[in-house]
Amino acid sequence: MIKGKKMLVVSAHAADFVWRSGGTIAKYIKEGAEVTVVVLSFGVRGESNDLWKQPDATAESVKEIRKGETLAAAETLAVKNIEFWDLVDYPMQFNSELEERMVRKIRETQPDIILTHDRFDYLNPDHNRVSEFVFECSVISNSSGARLEGTKVTKQMRIFGFEPHQTEMSNFRPNSIIDITDVYEQKIAAMKCFKAQSHLIEYYTQRAFMRGNHARRVSGNNSYKYAESFANYFPTAGPELY
Amino acid sequence: MIKGKKMLVVSAHAADFVWRSGGTIAKYIKEGAEVTVVVLSFGVRGESNDLWKQPDATAESVKEIRKGETLAAAETLAVKNIEFWDLVDYPMQFNSELEERMVRKIRETQPDIILTHDRFDYLNPDHNRVSEFVFECSVISNSSGARLEGTKVTKQMRIFGFEPHQTEMSNFRPNSIIDITDVYEQKIAAMKCFKAQSHLIEYYTQRAFMRGNHARRVSGNNSYKYAESFANYFPTAGPELY
Amino acid sequence: MIKGKKMLVVSAHAADFVWRSGGTIAKYIKEGAEVTVVVLSFGVRGESNDLWKQPDATAESVKEIRKGETLAAAETLAVKNIEFWDLVDYPMQFNSELEERMVRKIRETQPDIILTHDRFDYLNPDHNRVSEFVFECSVISNSSGARLEGTKVTKQMRIFGFEPHQTEMSNFRPNSIIDITDVYEQKIAAMKCFKAQSHLIEYYTQRAFMRGNHARRVSGNNSYKYAESFANYFPTAGPELY
Amino acid sequence: MIKGKKMLVVSAHAADFVWRSGGTIAKYIKEGAEVTVVVLSFGVRGESNDLWKQPDATAESVKEIRKGETLAAAETLAVKNIEFWDLVDYPMQFNSELEERMVRKIRETQPDIILTHDRFDYLNPDHNRVSEFVFECSVISNSSGARLEGTKVTKQMRIFGFEPHQTEMSNFRPNSIIDITDVYEQKIAAMKCFKAQSHLIEYYTQRAFMRGNHARRVSGNNSYKYAESFANYFPTAGPELY
Amino acid sequence: MIKGKKMLVVSAHAADFVWRSGGTIAKYIKEGAEVTVVVLSFGVRGESNDLWKQPDATAESVKEIRKGETLAAAETLAVKNIEFWDLVDYPMQFNSELEERMVRKIRETQPDIILTHDRFDYLNPDHNRVSEFVFECSVISNSSGARLEGTKVTKQMRIFGFEPHQTEMSNFRPNSIIDITDVYEQKIAAMKCFKAQSHLIEYYTQRAFMRGNHARRVSGNNSYKYAESFANYFPTAGPELY
Amino acid sequence: MIKGKKMLVVSAHAADFVWRSGGTIAKYIKEGAEVTVVVLSFGVRGESNDLWKQPDATAESVKEIRKGETLAAAETLAVKNIEFWDLVDYPMQFNSELEERMVRKIRETQPDIILTHDRFDYLNPDHNRVSEFVFECSVISNSSGARLEGTKVTKQMRIFGFEPHQTEMSNFRPNSIIDITDVYEQKIAAMKCFKAQSHLIEYYTQRAFMRGNHARRVSGNNSYKYAESFANYFPTAGPELY
Repeated sequence: MIKGKKMLVVSAHAADFVWRSGGTIAKYIKEGAEVTVVVLSFGVRGESNDLWKQPDATAESVKEIRKGETLAAAETLAVKNIEFWDLVDYPMQFNSELEERMVRKIRETQPDIILTHDRFDYLNPDHNRVSEFVFECSVISNSSGARLEGTKVTKQMRIFGFEPHQTEMSNFRPNSIIDITDVYEQKIAAMKCFKAQSHLIEYYTQRAFMRGNHARRVSGNNSYKYAESFANYFPTAGPELY
Repeated sequence: MIKGKKMLVVSAHAADFVWRSGGTIAKYIKEGAEVTVVVLSFGVRGESNDLWKQPDATAESVKEIRKGETLAAAETLAVKNIEFWDLVDYPMQFNSELEERMVRKIRETQPDIILTHDRFDYLNPDHNRVSEFVFECSVISNSSGARLEGTKVTKQMRIFGFEPHQTEMSNFRPNSIIDITDVYEQKIAAMKCFKAQSHLIEYYTQRAFMRGNHARRVSGNNSYKYAESFANYFPTAGPELY
Repeated sequence: MIKGKKMLVVSAHAADFVWRSGGTIAKYIKEGAEVTVVVLSFGVRGESNDLWKQPDATAESVKEIRKGETLAAAETLAVKNIEFWDLVDYPMQFNSELEERMVRKIRETQPDIILTHDRFDYLNPDHNRVSEFVFECSVISNSSGARLEGTKVTKQMRIFGFEPHQTEMSNFRPNSIIDITDVYEQKIAAMKCFKAQSHLIEYYTQRAFMRGNHARRVSGNNSYKYAESFANYFPTAGPELY
Repeated sequence: MIKGKKMLVVSAHAADFVWRSGGTIAKYIKEGAEVTVVVLSFGVRGESNDLWKQPDATAESVKEIRKGETLAAAETLAVKNIEFWDLVDYPMQFNSELEERMVRKIRETQPDIILTHDRFDYLNPDHNRVSEFVFECSVISNSSGARLEGTKVTKQMRIFGFEPHQTEMSNFRPNSIIDITDVYEQKIAAMKCFKAQSHLIEYYTQRAFMRGNHARRVSGNNSYKYAESFANYFPTAGPELY
Repeated sequence: MIKGKKMLVVSAHAADFVWRSGGTIAKYIKEGAEVTVVVLSFGVRGESNDLWKQPDATAESVKEIRKGETLAAAETLAVKNIEFWDLVDYPMQFNSELEERMVRKIRETQPDIILTHDRFDYLNPDHNRVSEFVFECSVISNSSGARLEGTKVTKQMRIFGFEPHQTEMSNFRPNSIIDITDVYEQKIAAMKCFKAQSHLIEYYTQRAFMRGNHARRVSGNNSYKYAESFANYFPTAGPELY
Repeated sequence: MIKGKKMLVVSAHAADFVWRSGGTIAKYIKEGAEVTVVVLSFGVRGESNDLWKQPDATAESVKEIRKGETLAAAETLAVKNIEFWDLVDYPMQFNSELEERMVRKIRETQPDIILTHDRFDYLNPDHNRVSEFVFECSVISNSSGARLEGTKVTKQMRIFGFEPHQTEMSNFRPNSIIDITDVYEQKIAAMKCFKAQSHLIEYYTQRAFMRGNHARRVSGNNSYKYAESFANYFPTAGPELY
């Protein structure tokens, strides 16, 4: 039952959540989930190579463009709640203040599900740090003893890792393959908002096709055409085998 | 939705399916699934140590006792369909004839779910061979080109591996932890049918408690008291994150 | 230096070598290598699902179609030496006679390179057995003491594993990513010969694109557009870091 | 083609680059590569046990001896460019300033190849930190958006990890085994410069022999007598299978 | 020979050493070892959920209760030397000052054995940091060049990792299973001191039973009823196979 | 306590037990253990390359030479009980008859310790099969229900795997490093008996040196000069941490 679920998405750089979970976000929203997106950085240093090719590019001009593109993409996915923390990237660094801010955000949103980077990305040190940061903050958020004025302790939520850029070199194992066939056009449209990373649009289009093939293969359900995959941080627990 | 699901359980030795999945079987039956159990051997050589302590024990007498105990356990779990292939154990060996028999059984039952041994058990070579055998037969069963008179090709089913005796030495990773709280008494009663392996009753009683703790821990749901865990051979695919 | 290299390709089923190494084969031939392909089975049982949908399909008719398609694909890739062993598939089984036949084939071709299935494919038991079979035969072929009338002992050759269908679930790690940009059209044309597996044509088209992205990413060479990847069974040894 | 290649070597402690890559460095220089060595620390605390046995040893006296030995070793290997950053070791710690310094060094040398510590050394926490530090700095160096006055963005270079002291406990997998037979005497002479770690001279002499055996074994080339091995951080990409 | 051995136990939170090694500690003391326990934090934030349910609980009141419980547990195990560092938990953070303090503690106690958290706990970031911290401090303590006024360099000690809460998800592999049958009552009594974590008492009672089963299984020694297990950081070295 | 221990060594080819465990065997015998060696094959096909260089070599002549060399080596190590099963090698194949023979041998010798090949050797398929064969036979031997006239069921023994030729590529992890300093000369003398594999004498001489270095490193005991290492199939269980 997706309806009524609360999902918090934490994205290291501006476009990460679109490439890696745009379809799943659109689907969850369409079916009645409440989704909040936190974008930690604009990816000015590490993920804006094409923008820097402009002769007069500055950190500020790049940031503005990235922000506009990200808002457009979020709108395409029907994301209503999005915020930008504007951290420096490459390398992204965390401290106690940011940790308190994230714990507060988790307690404020009381998520059933957190989507963020998976535990290991062999090419991208920022993604690894975000994964560790979000996981630690979730542990603190769930601890009764971690007192923060004006917050309410959370219950253990499900946490899922994005599929990284180069899957098998990052030890990624998909646990949940999500059918995004009926929101596929939204994802394509959202990806097209990012002009600085145009080579990735086709890349993630094709990955959706490939994961769609795997979804059919392991389920025998031929209606699945496009999909995204995620690793879960914990086993499932409940009444039924998944 | 458990109701209407068809489940095929393949157990290397007579009691394996009770220790490792008795609660899940009872639960699935209670909620309306159709369960078929295939017991490949009586475990006369490798899993009847206590019975052999009788001065006049013979392979035949041991087998009779094991069969009676297994039927009693199955009845306790409400299993209606159970069959015994009476293979020799330690080592269990397969051939083309057994393979055809298993493919026919899979096609006859058209299972949504197969429960059997997981891919690696560091202490029990029979379990490893059964895992490989069942998996291969499932692949053949799903292949249109594997023609067998009077059978109907199956669709890709879900396959789950039992938790082995010593989990972490066998590289076992639980993917699905199944809450068996409301059928727990049935599982205990079923385990008590096996007099030859009395030391295992307490062992699997305690494991149910331990997995219940983990179920609460990863879900935040405190109603889970007892549980069993399984590894899945494939990722899930579908509309929702699990 | 590709020119003059001798390559032996061993394919479990008729089309495996095309999906997984068609570009690399075409490239090696174009640059002057001698390539020999051994097709162990026609994939009648496990990899001809579409062909079996014909109401009057028989094992013989399926085989004929597969053979014709495979020869056409081989021709497209400019493969001159190809042979069919016509083994039964799903499950594929080996014995001493087949082993001697393969050792003889290896000694006859004296390959610098063997391409075959990688050590583990989580979905395809035949591929695993072929990997083990070919590796064992290579060890025997290289052993002075394994006397076979009319054969000449081989030197240790390089062995590379194909990328399996679902990479990361099969623990596949690419070691060599081969740029196939200039033979890409040949690969596409060769894949189109296989009517029974039409869904795989797009799948492997997209994989070539994805591996092309990775090739650019790890090399910084932007001329690489399409690629295939392989795992090597052994480390490289020589004068230079690769 | 080694001639003209630019190689940057980053060594946690003074002698690491000699034990682990002295032969490869000598070979690359001999065949026309330009090699730059950065020595991050003198290893005063953790790798100078014998020197501290002198009754009047001080950090300063130990450092002087280590520096002299390292310069002598570098000269033996024909290294012309070497610099000492004089960090404290055990534990070695990095910060933003050191990071900028390393990014500048990478951009200044524009390396085709970086040699440094591999991702995991089970006995030596400094080596792990250096590996992470150098990798992160390489990512930043390659990013167009990481602007540093007076520097030129680099292209993705190859990165190789040294074989650690106890290989198999550190999950090290050799990908490239480099034949150092023709520069072996230089390596031996360079190692002999380090009086404080005399027990390591025989150790690495024997490892060169052992890796020479492996080089012959996997290549069939019997001219390889001595070798060093490296793990590569990325797959190879290009026209040929390695 | 346990008699005369010196053991240093480093526990992230107040009760960790009791759940995970209470039996082994009691046994070592009983047989003549000298045991020192360092408790890094009281676990006020992360491991005192039940205590925080008191309406008027404060960090100070929680800490007082935890300290009292821990002292009582230590006394039950006959531990004479215990100290509390009173660090903040969740997240626990280390710095140079704490590092020097730990190196001094190691050199002061000159342990043959260090017991602490194992390298990876998938649920508990504090445990991972303590593992890394203690290991690094042990390396420094063993280094002649790490001069600290008034301390004596240590010899390489054995280091063992506690079994984490959820074993197989944390990649834990037991190397030493310690029979605690004759001190079992002491461990039970010690665990009962912790009122804030009452659900763990039964959990670790049952784990002792489960590890007792494994101890019998791998040794054939039926006198082992209850056990604790540990991973060793290094292989054993000596005259005998263990 | 080595005195009185019973050890069974199972060697795939004639010289394997000498290269990989000759020192440990000599030491155990010297200190009062009873050692029995079973040599499964003479290694005529796969491990006698130098002998086959004789122009008139035949399988029979090679076998005779290997047998003489092996007996001489065994004598040097003071092995009194050795038997040759004369199986064909490359590939070595097992059947029910050989299995019964091995179970009988295990029950006859009632070993405390079995030494044989470890679970995975990436270069040598025979070694993998022997490992699996011996392990399965040990399981059967320990089973009360596996009745064999004239035999006595065994208790669970310790099983240790030899270090394979190329350690890290075979996933080998040493658990027990055995100091062989005081029997080192015997091992060297025993190795020198094998003229057909002269290149291995230096190889294993140097490995003994390397493992001696590791033994000192992990124990701090500087009297260890030469060593052999083994993986254990099971954790230790008993009163003490190893």
